[in-house]
Amino acid sequence: MADYTIRRARREDIDAIVRMLADDQLGATRDDAGDLEPYLRAFDEIDTDPNQVLVVVAIDDKPVGTLQLTIIPGLARRGATRGQIEAVRIHADHRGTGLGADLVRWAIDESRRRGCALVQLTSDTSRTDAHRFYGRLGFIPSHTGFKLKL
Amino acid sequence: MADYTIRRARREDIDAIVRMLADDQLGATRDDAGDLEPYLRAFDEIDTDPNQVLVVVAIDDKPVGTLQLTIIPGLARRGATRGQIEAVRIHADHRGTGLGADLVRWAIDESRRRGCALVQLTSDTSRTDAHRFYGRLGFIPSHTGFKLKL
Repeated sequence: MADYTIRRARREDIDAIVRMLADDQLGATRDDAGDLEPYLRAFDEIDTDPNQVLVVVAIDDKPVGTLQLTIIPGLARRGATRGQIEAVRIHADHRGTGLGADLVRWAIDESRRRGCALVQLTSDTSRTDAHRFYGRLGFIPSHTGFKLKL
Repeated sequence: MADYTIRRARREDIDAIVRMLADDQLGATRDDAGDLEPYLRAFDEIDTDPNQVLVVVAIDDKPVGTLQLTIIPGLARRGATRGQIEAVRIHADHRGTGLGADLVRWAIDESRRRGCALVQLTSDTSRTDAHRFYGRLGFIPSHTGFKLKL
């Protein structure tokens, strides 16, 4: 595997991140790197929120993978804080190399460091490869994830 | 249905909220109102975070239902902000009265008001009644929810 670093995303990474979101079986109909404006606005919100971390895996400082980690305080489970992983993507040229597993392990470690008792995520029911991937990392598919579009 | 109000939870509601969390088929093994200290600490974190809202349904100002709404900015889906619902509970004496549906509808409306494009939640796969309840409110069970205990 090539040398890589996992680091906080910067504004100039957004173009590469959005291309990864759009280059995806489900994201293709939902995301488009043609107009970055809404993404940059969202990035500024994420970047100024201390409970949000948007990270990239970079090779030669170029993003080839990304995920977002949200820290959610809560009352249930004796006041347990949760780490929630969203928007995990690895560039098509770098899939199957172990980068994705390292990136998710980074998010698990960061959640532990921030005192979380639990890490959670949802994955579209059609992404069966992703489900096996999360299973190998120790995640249990104990829940059904519901969405309502507004 | 008795007159009720939906309002932001206060520190003095935590005892009643934790009793509802503990009086639950799954929460019974995970929550306990005997020691409120960890819950009060979590409440303070939730209450000072502008992206968190812990609410109660109250009758005569006494909490008989609760949920937590988290506002999550994100890049995916053209920079869509999400509203995430957690820890929905209705006191055993008030189930089947429509309070729960009104409470979830409040969270949907609040998410819309805050500019969210999506509302999401997960529910343990064993809670089949809850799944029907969310289906009636328009939620689609499109995802698998994974958890990893730390």
